[in-house]
Amino acid sequence: MSTPELGLPMAVPAPGLPARVRIHEVGPRDGLQNEKATVPTEVKAEFIRRLADAGLTTIEATSFVHPKWVPQLADAEELFPMVSGLPVDLPVLVPNERGLERALSLSATRVAVFASATESFAKANLNRTVDEALAMFEPVVRRAKDGGAHVRGYLSMCFGDPWEGPVPVDQVVRVCRALRDMGCDELSLGDTIGVATPGHVLRLLAALNEGGVPTGVIGVHFHDTYGQALANTLAALQHGVTTVDASAGGLGGCPYAKSATGNLATEDLVWMLRGLGIDTGVDLGRLVATSEWMAGRLGRPSPSRTLRALSHKEQ
Amino acid sequence: MSTPELGLPMAVPAPGLPARVRIHEVGPRDGLQNEKATVPTEVKAEFIRRLADAGLTTIEATSFVHPKWVPQLADAEELFPMVSGLPVDLPVLVPNERGLERALSLSATRVAVFASATESFAKANLNRTVDEALAMFEPVVRRAKDGGAHVRGYLSMCFGDPWEGPVPVDQVVRVCRALRDMGCDELSLGDTIGVATPGHVLRLLAALNEGGVPTGVIGVHFHDTYGQALANTLAALQHGVTTVDASAGGLGGCPYAKSATGNLATEDLVWMLRGLGIDTGVDLGRLVATSEWMAGRLGRPSPSRTLRALSHKEQ
Repeated sequence: MSTPELGLPMAVPAPGLPARVRIHEVGPRDGLQNEKATVPTEVKAEFIRRLADAGLTTIEATSFVHPKWVPQLADAEELFPMVSGLPVDLPVLVPNERGLERALSLSATRVAVFASATESFAKANLNRTVDEALAMFEPVVRRAKDGGAHVRGYLSMCFGDPWEGPVPVDQVVRVCRALRDMGCDELSLGDTIGVATPGHVLRLLAALNEGGVPTGVIGVHFHDTYGQALANTLAALQHGVTTVDASAGGLGGCPYAKSATGNLATEDLVWMLRGLGIDTGVDLGRLVATSEWMAGRLGRPSPSRTLRALSHKEQ
Repeated sequence: MSTPELGLPMAVPAPGLPARVRIHEVGPRDGLQNEKATVPTEVKAEFIRRLADAGLTTIEATSFVHPKWVPQLADAEELFPMVSGLPVDLPVLVPNERGLERALSLSATRVAVFASATESFAKANLNRTVDEALAMFEPVVRRAKDGGAHVRGYLSMCFGDPWEGPVPVDQVVRVCRALRDMGCDELSLGDTIGVATPGHVLRLLAALNEGGVPTGVIGVHFHDTYGQALANTLAALQHGVTTVDASAGGLGGCPYAKSATGNLATEDLVWMLRGLGIDTGVDLGRLVATSEWMAGRLGRPSPSRTLRALSHKEQ
């Protein structure tokens, strides 16, 4: 990769932005979970190793969900020990107590639960009401904390919901507070269908602060379904958010499929943060090479615009 | 189109943004000029009519450049009279005095000249130095103003240049001042290769203000080559910019071609502005239908994420 060394873009900090952002890389879990192709375990391990080598320090590795629900990640028990010695944080998703025990037995030190801000999605995804789902997670979080693990609480449908439309911010604040009260160390606000715009992001963040949830525990998880992810990220950074979720190569968001979920591509995020002079520790050239390698394994092009632009220059 | 009426996204204004933005639609000129396919004149006219019907009020119609250089727009003389009765502004590009006379003879009331901020691109695009190009435009602008026309000055390579790398803001300010001094009513700052990030945008806008160029005469023209166009637009809006260039369906920026220029898609822009409660006058459903129709004429999918997302819902 020569292009990232060309000195583009010019690094020009904007006022009021953080000096450093931690990227929570979700490609190996959220990305591969939504890919049709089932990826061999060794390829997943190599993907995680290369992401770590590119400078990502938080890489969500897999999910200890029942293989029946997510066959793409049925190899969690084999995969996790193959990468757990890497000098990076490797959170894993745990859907319930059974999943948590599997993760803890492999010495996972960071776990994540996956809640919903809306009744419709809680019903569709978990077959429970929002409160029933929270009740299900409470012993999981308590047991994880007792086991010394760091717990992230994902909250999906924080902005819009395909069945319910726009999601009231108070509803999101209530569930965030519940997740915090049960012990979640960090929250990830998901725009699962990608409809959010920057004003909505700022209003939700302000409402969370007013509701007692400090910005320091909040991560943002934007989808690029409508092309809004980076503008929303900029607004969140201006509010003080320093944890941003992204997926290498935009994995999980194939633009050619109807089921496009549109994860923000880590490359597009790094391009912006680099231009803003915000430190991420990521080597863009290595990251691009890793995503190109993974795209080759999946046999399809990446939806990341930065990846495509830099790849074209290589040809 | 049913989706735009679903009420998504929630319209939530962000503090400090303008109440109204004028979209300068460049699809019929900048878009079609960069498409491989040559589009029949009647299709171009219908495209412009549908864009006007969708609520766009400034539609750059064509270019009076020599047909040898841009064969895609060789039908300017036939096309312009077919649409000039529409109740919208229809600027046309004029490369030199000859082109201006052709445009004025058809009663064009808004014209645009196309300058470069860098020597390399001035040489490549105009075979002149920056100052030689400015000298060439001076009589064009004077004659246009004498003829009562509104003049827009495009300035390309305002942020990065493929040969020169990052472009110093002072260099851009100097050329902008020259264009203003010769009488340009409006300037359009082009990120021709799409490398800009929000801090760089803010620094250039501040430098322009300090250099005597007020924000009110500045439009921004971002390319989505690296996915940065909407984040850059948000920064420009925060600075007070109210004129934003975009191309319906992202025309001219085919993501599947190496020559991707990556024009910001008007649909993606309208989605963000709509969510921010900023008035554009554009009916998103009609715009999406227009771009889908045009994509059908061109025989290829649109790179607009919003267009794809809404189209998927229709299937």
